[in-house]
Amino acid sequence: MSTNNIYFHETNISRTDRELIKGQKGMIIWLTGLSGSGKSTLANNLEKELHKLKKHTYILDGDNLRLGLNKDLGFGNDDRVENIRRVAEVANLMMDAGLIVITAFISPFRAERLMARTLIGNNNFIEVFVDTPLEICEWRDPKGLYKKARNGELLNMTGINSPYEIPEKPEFHFLPNSSVEDLKKLIVNHA
Amino acid sequence: MSTNNIYFHETNISRTDRELIKGQKGMIIWLTGLSGSGKSTLANNLEKELHKLKKHTYILDGDNLRLGLNKDLGFGNDDRVENIRRVAEVANLMMDAGLIVITAFISPFRAERLMARTLIGNNNFIEVFVDTPLEICEWRDPKGLYKKARNGELLNMTGINSPYEIPEKPEFHFLPNSSVEDLKKLIVNHA
Repeated sequence: MSTNNIYFHETNISRTDRELIKGQKGMIIWLTGLSGSGKSTLANNLEKELHKLKKHTYILDGDNLRLGLNKDLGFGNDDRVENIRRVAEVANLMMDAGLIVITAFISPFRAERLMARTLIGNNNFIEVFVDTPLEICEWRDPKGLYKKARNGELLNMTGINSPYEIPEKPEFHFLPNSSVEDLKKLIVNHA
Repeated sequence: MSTNNIYFHETNISRTDRELIKGQKGMIIWLTGLSGSGKSTLANNLEKELHKLKKHTYILDGDNLRLGLNKDLGFGNDDRVENIRRVAEVANLMMDAGLIVITAFISPFRAERLMARTLIGNNNFIEVFVDTPLEICEWRDPKGLYKKARNGELLNMTGINSPYEIPEKPEFHFLPNSSVEDLKKLIVNHA
């Protein structure tokens, strides 16, 4: 086989081919909710459960995006939009690679979630509203951000001085008494 | 299992865990060479061979990056550097997901390839110099870019009016008479 004749056309390996060796369908589980609502914890627990089923997963969250790909972005409105755009684009590439991608970002605006959903495709997009009451999130305050916002040291804190637009029709509504098991079932049925 | 107590710490699924269910080691195969050198063809043929071995791969190239994640970038120097930075960051995330990632970008500058290598880690980075002579690339001219550059209609065309800095110590030197099979062996031994 010559690799030098660029006019020689071979069928490329497709998303379906990549999904087949993984025994799954690529998709995005888009977690949205307030800071401290438990998105990262849910993402990790969900990944553990899916991994037990030999599902091929990956988590995209602030930790691995803000320190790398998106380290050039700040927290102003434009940069927040660009942050989510890149998350959606990377998630889309990973889904094309056949992975089940779990994203864990506040993503407070309907417009940005709709942008992600449109890019990724409705059939591949499972929006999970991690609906933990603000009082609980603020009591947890894992990064001390609520305290800062209440003291006026932090602008654009979702839930305090920036709105969180509640998802109208999420594929899964994760309440404080919801179980990871139920969410896992939804995903496995979808795959 | 409660997912609501964010203080409850569980071991997360690691890169090694993800690699284990795929039966491989994540890595980056970084193809570099002139426009028309055959990078995309080589990437596709290599992916086909690796797929036959049930390896989990993904190709990053201009087609899936410039139309999506990097669609905000032009072709000036700053934007070309940012283009490659994002490619390296996304490749790094995919490697962390356990995939063998094949990148196909001209990446003409040593500094940018070193940036990618440093980010990704020397042990995970297989630089492949797709060394097709300029005369052959220009004769192929698959996108008509050389002709435009010769006519003065295109600036920054690598090999014509912008330099290509030859890799000094690539892990694999792919010449017109090289075989995909040999490159595949290197990768399989590395995995």
